[in-house]
Amino acid sequence: MFEFEIEAEDARSAARAAVYRTPHGDIPTPVFAPVGTQAAVKTLTPEELEATGTRLILGNSYHLYLRPGHELIARFGGLHRFMNWRGPILTDSGGFQVFSLAPLRKVDDDGVTFRSHIDGSIHRFTPEKVIAIEEAIGADIVMVLDECSAPKDRVYNEEALVRTHRWAARCLEAHRREDQALFGIVQGGIFPDLRQESARYLTSLGFHGYAIGGLSVGETKEETYSTLDVTIPLLPRERPRYLMGVGTPEDILEAVARGVDIFDCVFPTRVARNGGLMTRHGRLNIRNARFAEDPLPVEPGCTCYTCQHYSRAYLRHLFVAKETLALRLATIHNLHFIQWLMAEIRRQIRQGTFLEFKNSFLAAYRMSDQQARFS
Amino acid sequence: MFEFEIEAEDARSAARAAVYRTPHGDIPTPVFAPVGTQAAVKTLTPEELEATGTRLILGNSYHLYLRPGHELIARFGGLHRFMNWRGPILTDSGGFQVFSLAPLRKVDDDGVTFRSHIDGSIHRFTPEKVIAIEEAIGADIVMVLDECSAPKDRVYNEEALVRTHRWAARCLEAHRREDQALFGIVQGGIFPDLRQESARYLTSLGFHGYAIGGLSVGETKEETYSTLDVTIPLLPRERPRYLMGVGTPEDILEAVARGVDIFDCVFPTRVARNGGLMTRHGRLNIRNARFAEDPLPVEPGCTCYTCQHYSRAYLRHLFVAKETLALRLATIHNLHFIQWLMAEIRRQIRQGTFLEFKNSFLAAYRMSDQQARFS
Repeated sequence: MFEFEIEAEDARSAARAAVYRTPHGDIPTPVFAPVGTQAAVKTLTPEELEATGTRLILGNSYHLYLRPGHELIARFGGLHRFMNWRGPILTDSGGFQVFSLAPLRKVDDDGVTFRSHIDGSIHRFTPEKVIAIEEAIGADIVMVLDECSAPKDRVYNEEALVRTHRWAARCLEAHRREDQALFGIVQGGIFPDLRQESARYLTSLGFHGYAIGGLSVGETKEETYSTLDVTIPLLPRERPRYLMGVGTPEDILEAVARGVDIFDCVFPTRVARNGGLMTRHGRLNIRNARFAEDPLPVEPGCTCYTCQHYSRAYLRHLFVAKETLALRLATIHNLHFIQWLMAEIRRQIRQGTFLEFKNSFLAAYRMSDQQARFS
Repeated sequence: MFEFEIEAEDARSAARAAVYRTPHGDIPTPVFAPVGTQAAVKTLTPEELEATGTRLILGNSYHLYLRPGHELIARFGGLHRFMNWRGPILTDSGGFQVFSLAPLRKVDDDGVTFRSHIDGSIHRFTPEKVIAIEEAIGADIVMVLDECSAPKDRVYNEEALVRTHRWAARCLEAHRREDQALFGIVQGGIFPDLRQESARYLTSLGFHGYAIGGLSVGETKEETYSTLDVTIPLLPRERPRYLMGVGTPEDILEAVARGVDIFDCVFPTRVARNGGLMTRHGRLNIRNARFAEDPLPVEPGCTCYTCQHYSRAYLRHLFVAKETLALRLATIHNLHFIQWLMAEIRRQIRQGTFLEFKNSFLAAYRMSDQQARFS
């Protein structure tokens, strides 16, 4: 269980293609996990997700703990069965949500107390509690409880890192299920020495895999990338690396080049629901009047269900008329696009042309991003 | 084109089973048409609709004329191609919407002027204009422009009926497309003599089929049924009969017994989006807390996608968490249920047991409707 087999390593970057074996199936990496916060990837069925090329999805422990409740999910045989998703699932620990969504949180060395964003009720997460929640939900890959700090506050990051490390050790101690891979989470804001300290400490504890948290939350792209540059070389080669909450095609390509294997982000699905459709030539705002009579599919040549059956004009009509079907068709296209990108990244790594692909993809994508801005 | 082949007539009621042949396929009747107001049956793809057993859908001319526009639809090869529905389509004339949705309408003998409910712009429908719109949209079955009057106002109904009849004759005169069946619409409120006058007059003009309009808009069930009783015997046996805007399982069964072949209604889809799930034993309000831990499918034994894959508990969770997937799964189930009912009605007519089926179905359904009310 949980073998991580590296199939190819790029000679000119840290990119690698691998297969991560889990109890619910093999995950070819680099992999992108769509976000299924509340036991559903918004608007889609599991069959539709699979058809987009999705192999791994993310569930949010914080949300599932509050509603419908981790114990209820356990009584239904775990999240896979409850939501009818047969492939691998990854759950975050809820740390990020507690520190970003929940009002009135109070952190102490033992854990964090917070109010539910749904009904204001008071709850407490400790490392042991979070592991109990994740074991009940039953994902294949689970995360330790961490404290997500403001990335640029040095003093806070130093303090938070001490707690995050103690919590990581307690999570490792508490975790029992052998059919779950527990990942540590490297923190430390934008401070290279803290990130390195964190990577070294967590590696010394020995986790199944390593996540990099606290990025893509307001720092510059240069800070994100240089943080990866100083962190990833300290993580063991033979373990999967997961960059949490990333990302856009650009960020994914940059992170793959630096050795990241796993990604999750609401980006493609959220953008889709706002009418932003991803193509190799940039993003289309499908609500734009210029698409009103456009008979082309979103992206000519795309093999997704949406592009095979509908025109831009029809999609625009559905968005303007506020038809729910619009959200579905757009989500299907964007996930198909991002999964196409991941498969292509993998293929290019294996054939030794990843950097060329990265450059040519980004040139076309950025150019049209500019066009999109002016349209 | 447009053969209406009666396969069986019930010996003890006016129910009949037939096949209505249209350019986009055969429609077994009695048939229920889900409503696709804005070029989409809310939340579903055409493939999902087909999987529910749907063979005919309805489009609203008023809405499609306003948005995206009938001329745009025509440039895309008609509504079938625009929305990717390959089966038969029926369009209403927009009369009902103008008289129920549009603010500030003014009716005169030549037509009706109204404001768009979307942007307040001023528009005018005449019989010729409505036929032009319906020919552009390109449905298989199209309706004449009619005036929908308050069902219980005698003086208004007398005046409106004169206009409705003149408009019907002008629609028949204006209509050109031979691949469309034009239906007349019997009006006359709850007044038997007006309904009979209308049925006789329209029959004398000679339409492909006959609709019964202006019912299920506030009159009692007894008034609805007795209006059918006095109207249908005056309509030609060999032509399809369409009861507009109906309905519930109860109303469908009563109308089939009186000789109706075609139905359309937002009922099953709208109720679904509000969490009302139809079963043979009545309607479930799936948001109810009693379903929070219920591992059963919505209706045990149901073969729809929703019941084959999800528990009531999961559906309730999706509704409570406001996940769009809830609307889809509920819509699929309710349409599957109503299409199961239509297929069963047809089967029972053919084997001569329709009345027994009607009685046993309604006994179980009404009983549980009461239960539902108390739960």
